[in-house]
Amino acid sequence: MNWKNNPVEKIKDWESELADNHQNFIKAGLKLDLTRGKPAIEQLALADGLDGILQGNYLASDGTDTRNYGGLTGLPEARNLGAEWLGLPQEEVIVSGNSSLSLMYQVLHVGAHYGFGGTPWLQQSTPPEFLAIVPGYDRHFAICEKLGIKMVNIPMKADGPDMEMVETQVRRPQVKGLWCVPKYSNPTGNIYSAEVVDRIARLGNQAASDFRIMWDNAYAVHDHHEDAPELTNLMELCRLHGTQDSVFLIGSTSKVTLAGAGISFLGGSKANIAHFLEEMAYWTIGPDKVNQLRHARLLPDLAATKKHMQKHAEITRPKFELVLKKLEESFRDQEMGSWISPEGGYFVSFDSLPGHAKEIVRLAGEAGVKMTPAGSTFPYGIDPEDKNIRLSPTFPPIEDLSKAMDIFVNCVQLATIRRHLGEQ
Amino acid sequence: MNWKNNPVEKIKDWESELADNHQNFIKAGLKLDLTRGKPAIEQLALADGLDGILQGNYLASDGTDTRNYGGLTGLPEARNLGAEWLGLPQEEVIVSGNSSLSLMYQVLHVGAHYGFGGTPWLQQSTPPEFLAIVPGYDRHFAICEKLGIKMVNIPMKADGPDMEMVETQVRRPQVKGLWCVPKYSNPTGNIYSAEVVDRIARLGNQAASDFRIMWDNAYAVHDHHEDAPELTNLMELCRLHGTQDSVFLIGSTSKVTLAGAGISFLGGSKANIAHFLEEMAYWTIGPDKVNQLRHARLLPDLAATKKHMQKHAEITRPKFELVLKKLEESFRDQEMGSWISPEGGYFVSFDSLPGHAKEIVRLAGEAGVKMTPAGSTFPYGIDPEDKNIRLSPTFPPIEDLSKAMDIFVNCVQLATIRRHLGEQ
Repeated sequence: MNWKNNPVEKIKDWESELADNHQNFIKAGLKLDLTRGKPAIEQLALADGLDGILQGNYLASDGTDTRNYGGLTGLPEARNLGAEWLGLPQEEVIVSGNSSLSLMYQVLHVGAHYGFGGTPWLQQSTPPEFLAIVPGYDRHFAICEKLGIKMVNIPMKADGPDMEMVETQVRRPQVKGLWCVPKYSNPTGNIYSAEVVDRIARLGNQAASDFRIMWDNAYAVHDHHEDAPELTNLMELCRLHGTQDSVFLIGSTSKVTLAGAGISFLGGSKANIAHFLEEMAYWTIGPDKVNQLRHARLLPDLAATKKHMQKHAEITRPKFELVLKKLEESFRDQEMGSWISPEGGYFVSFDSLPGHAKEIVRLAGEAGVKMTPAGSTFPYGIDPEDKNIRLSPTFPPIEDLSKAMDIFVNCVQLATIRRHLGEQ
Repeated sequence: MNWKNNPVEKIKDWESELADNHQNFIKAGLKLDLTRGKPAIEQLALADGLDGILQGNYLASDGTDTRNYGGLTGLPEARNLGAEWLGLPQEEVIVSGNSSLSLMYQVLHVGAHYGFGGTPWLQQSTPPEFLAIVPGYDRHFAICEKLGIKMVNIPMKADGPDMEMVETQVRRPQVKGLWCVPKYSNPTGNIYSAEVVDRIARLGNQAASDFRIMWDNAYAVHDHHEDAPELTNLMELCRLHGTQDSVFLIGSTSKVTLAGAGISFLGGSKANIAHFLEEMAYWTIGPDKVNQLRHARLLPDLAATKKHMQKHAEITRPKFELVLKKLEESFRDQEMGSWISPEGGYFVSFDSLPGHAKEIVRLAGEAGVKMTPAGSTFPYGIDPEDKNIRLSPTFPPIEDLSKAMDIFVNCVQLATIRRHLGEQ
């Protein structure tokens, strides 16, 4: 039964019960953290074989001594893995260091300051803009903010971004790009449908010539189940529509091997990759090829990577199941919030009733559960409806996660009921 | 006897002898490379202990799990090594990935686009300039060129840059910095004297408030002999003169452990480091801490690092001795060129007679010896006197180096004599 159908007195009783719980949580002085999408210790340990895997053999398949300088593109075997990951031929992929965020910053700073073939974005007559699918990844948005690229919110729907709005926006020539996490989107966890991917592939024909889709396929192999849905290959469709130059594709092994010490992939058309390599030569002599070789030895191809990811899923799946069970038990048919049940990735996105997210996060903090600040899944930290809250279940041990979710549920209920009573 | 004192006929005979040699070199079809300062395979092998050194223990001294995200500053133990290297307290040093070039690009791109406390360099009314000590390191100059920072040449003298010229230049407020390789300068191999370091430390009091000295101490421990000269501590003098904010200090283990897979150090005042960390957060979640831990285990402090470098010296010293012996035997009192005998570092800088460098490099290329292009040790690739040639003896096996030097000597002699005869 929906809680609102209860008599006011009963709701008031519930409110004091929730408030008591809340006080008890505060007294318990817990320190739980649901903020960031970090792998758990057990997940990291799955890659402990990396250190020492080389057994003194530092030579790559093409004879490169990985210990010395050079090799801007990355090693052939690492490029092969990136190529399978991103769905591209090897020559359209380069492999870099431990941070795909760095690659993304670099790509956008090239557009902003040096340009993609024409006038740099920041030197054009109209200031550049980017489309931000919301809710989305705060660090994507921060790059735009830092570079002075104005963001326009595009709502996320079940099958991907609102494409009508995207298509209308990209006709304005100052719109220079689009942030996408197409599979297990951060934080909503949904996957772009084949139709949406096809419409995204066509954007290059409607947008400015220096428009670039940032296709951050961070969770390409991060499935909770073996029979996970497939993401449609964007570049194949771009080739069909003649828009290959409109896209950069990104991936990394941060959540496959080691979060701080993985390797990252950048994909794009031959022209885009050639251009980016020219730029890169100004700021590096080459990536850490030794670590790339370690990765290629541990994960020789995508099949091996997917097999490795099954071990991750065994650790993460129960945590997601727990979170979803708690949400389901507490909020099903209760009109206190909504969420999507993701089939992979690192997040559960919870939408409270409008205007409640900040208060819920504040209450949770008080009760010892650190949450991603409300608003941080939106550009400039502003959630216009103040409702989105990102839950990151992977890092804490499952007992801590269970406690944290009990507290979270209590906070959602308390905030919602208090507001309801106040509005009576 | 100086060759010019010979009768013309004898010089002509010598010219044909040299030309014959040259033809024979061409026929031999050698492929030798003296271009870049790369460690030899035997040097790289000295660090083969790195892979596997962790023995499953990924925890840093402060309890950080190095495998996970975070830790922008780098690990405490790696910062300690960087602090000793750069001559700073630990809190004034951060440790990054495999490329100190990336750190230097990042520092300058912050100055250019975001500013050091004031208006970004590129948005000030007068376009920014940098002082380039010449000959110098091509990749330093390329960063300025890329960012649109105009360079002004400052001649290198035996004890460091021409400080009178530097002091005059920095009074112009558009001068925003100075590139220095203070120990075993690239390519000249000399060390800045204590007096020069002191005068550099004072520059911050005469220059614009957003002026930054780029103190690239790349060869801090790269001595050919144990009793190597010490470089004066710049930051201590800056503290004395109140100019701590005018300097960034840089180092890396690229030529200590692995050229492609080392760790890099950035030092500066607390204010400068705090500011840089704020900027860094836009483009990375943190450096590869696992590799930092490997390094700290192999090289727990500077004493261990210096001991490790003695093994390098045993490999590189004979190569430098060979190069210097060949130059000495061929050119002493011959007025065909001059050079400095470095006590460490990676280069021997050879100055031909003015106007000869390009031709010498061209001839060498013809004869199978690839050399750094003439001019590349100067901004914009322009050596105004066309005389400087950088020799990099470390990478080739000593037999190849010996052959390459014979060819080089022959090219210098041939180019010089031909020009002389042509001018008769």
